[in-house]
Amino acid sequence: MIVEGVARRSIWLGRDGRSVEIIDQTRLPHEFVVRTLVDLDQAAEAISAMWVRGAPLIGVTAAYGVALQMNADASDASLAHAVDTLAATRPTAVNLRWALEEMKSTLAGVASTDRSSAAYRHAGKLAEDDVETCRKIGEHGVTLIEAIAERRGDGGPIQILTHCNAGWLATVDWGTALSAIYRAHDSGIPVHVWVDETRPRNQGASLTAWELGQHGVPHTVIADNAGGHLMQHGRVDLCITGSDRTTATGDVCNKIGTYLKALAAHDNGVPFYAALPHSTIDWDLSDGVAQIPIEERDGAELRRFSGPTREGHIVEISVLPDSTPVANPAFDVTPARLVTGLITERGVCEASRQGLLGLYPERGGETTQSCESSEA
Amino acid sequence: MIVEGVARRSIWLGRDGRSVEIIDQTRLPHEFVVRTLVDLDQAAEAISAMWVRGAPLIGVTAAYGVALQMNADASDASLAHAVDTLAATRPTAVNLRWALEEMKSTLAGVASTDRSSAAYRHAGKLAEDDVETCRKIGEHGVTLIEAIAERRGDGGPIQILTHCNAGWLATVDWGTALSAIYRAHDSGIPVHVWVDETRPRNQGASLTAWELGQHGVPHTVIADNAGGHLMQHGRVDLCITGSDRTTATGDVCNKIGTYLKALAAHDNGVPFYAALPHSTIDWDLSDGVAQIPIEERDGAELRRFSGPTREGHIVEISVLPDSTPVANPAFDVTPARLVTGLITERGVCEASRQGLLGLYPERGGETTQSCESSEA
Repeated sequence: MIVEGVARRSIWLGRDGRSVEIIDQTRLPHEFVVRTLVDLDQAAEAISAMWVRGAPLIGVTAAYGVALQMNADASDASLAHAVDTLAATRPTAVNLRWALEEMKSTLAGVASTDRSSAAYRHAGKLAEDDVETCRKIGEHGVTLIEAIAERRGDGGPIQILTHCNAGWLATVDWGTALSAIYRAHDSGIPVHVWVDETRPRNQGASLTAWELGQHGVPHTVIADNAGGHLMQHGRVDLCITGSDRTTATGDVCNKIGTYLKALAAHDNGVPFYAALPHSTIDWDLSDGVAQIPIEERDGAELRRFSGPTREGHIVEISVLPDSTPVANPAFDVTPARLVTGLITERGVCEASRQGLLGLYPERGGETTQSCESSEA
Repeated sequence: MIVEGVARRSIWLGRDGRSVEIIDQTRLPHEFVVRTLVDLDQAAEAISAMWVRGAPLIGVTAAYGVALQMNADASDASLAHAVDTLAATRPTAVNLRWALEEMKSTLAGVASTDRSSAAYRHAGKLAEDDVETCRKIGEHGVTLIEAIAERRGDGGPIQILTHCNAGWLATVDWGTALSAIYRAHDSGIPVHVWVDETRPRNQGASLTAWELGQHGVPHTVIADNAGGHLMQHGRVDLCITGSDRTTATGDVCNKIGTYLKALAAHDNGVPFYAALPHSTIDWDLSDGVAQIPIEERDGAELRRFSGPTREGHIVEISVLPDSTPVANPAFDVTPARLVTGLITERGVCEASRQGLLGLYPERGGETTQSCESSEA
């Protein structure tokens, strides 16, 4: 997508073909800072310090972290060290572990003389696969926006509400929830995005608004509290969010507050979709509220804010005394009954087991076998 | 209520019996600053700069502002000037206008020699009336908490979620939504309050948490996004909010985001109450969403944050670039169908015309006559 008029991805190879460059997302929206990662430790720091975030981008960064280490030392011990170091950066990130397993199994059978180039090749493939997955999510998702534009027929902007950042900054390019929006915008359908601030980490205000602004997509930031009011007054045509984890029955676990927006959408007849790659679907889960453990994050996220003063110095301030107790659950679960549909790289389906099996019939066999064997 | 171990109100007469003292609420929770108001202009500044806020407290401050001016100059022209000056401080505050009308009509027939003492007397009466109204709201509201404690019978804390600040800082003492909570706590019923941060002005984090902490009521601040998740997991027994304006049919217009919490409460079978003095009831309104205009406030409320740095200097920072468009509706409307009941100074009733007329039968006559005459 576009930054300062130039097409960008969230991660790319440096000119030397070995180093890896990323955008330091902790500096957005106030500063656009590109960081060059030249070794494993820098790749690990990029993930643990959250210069990069978003499950797909974390996975690809970790894959390149393995490649950087193979470039320095292609031994088995070095490979094991890279995988362990990177796995420890974000202990609960499923996609990170998956990407490291991919790299490990790909490189295990490769001679050490070829490991460096194989590692870069495979990391590059994971990046390209992610771009293609997100592109397809957009291709399917845009049909929903086109249908609303056609039904309305007045040429006015389609009003879309999103929560948190499920844009290209969370992936390699395109994003998930925002992919359909970029595609609509690029193809000339007028869209306007209501961007939830997304407390406590403010990813909507800091990242989504920045992305959309750089790409030229009209948008307005609102407090997380405001979406229900806008929907009551007919000012939202469609909600699209991402999903961090999706049950086989279509429940959506996503950034805290998603559930409240889905309730408001349901109460006002506004369609509510989650956009997700198949990798977020957990086929073993059938009840998201009961089964998905919710990460409780550091209360400092609520207590402190950073940004530039009037003089342009970036400082951190307290908005709550340290003595005030805080709780900070990071995700919530939106039950499938509130989700109009799921947008995946294979198409749009109902948020239900039946809907998902329609797109992923190969999973039906597994599920049926598993049921049969447990009944046997 | 208690501050640093001492019983306080939000406004009181100075030792000289003429000046008026208030708490500068813009400095909370970081600093407890008492300001002395010695003339009309300072009273007007207290309201316009939001050192005081909350409809009841604004009204009482304006009444004392008139008294300060009468102390300096008790002429008719001076009275008119005081009323005009104070009315202009917060153009949309209904309670402010009501309090000024009260003062004007009370003082109009009083000889100028007696006006100053009459003004202080009447301002004092308005303050005492507000305390008594809030005390009664708590007396009725606490019965709901007692009933939950009795039903649960396990002696564990009753978990109550509130939004924004409807505490004693918004009134003269007790508060509305928090009145029942203080009463429960003071009478030995264990309570724990989930305090919504309440973006964009953070009144929950800055004021409600401070009030509760000073009075010793256990509480935890959460992002506005978190309440739905807590309710899904059975961690909220009861929601109580205030109401800025209530329709004759029981719709509740309150701080933006209240509607989202009411939706979550309804979805999870959690009782949702609004606590309000009768002065917020607008007997002419029957459809809050359609009829109540919602104030759109300055986007700076979303863009900027202030608080102390690590070194203790209070600074203002930007969290959003000035170029990012923002929208900032200040209130939303929770339809009566989502409100379990209303707590007023006369008792607890269903959120409906019938419910309200049960507590305010004298309004039934008016409504019936009005309907008859319009049918005639």
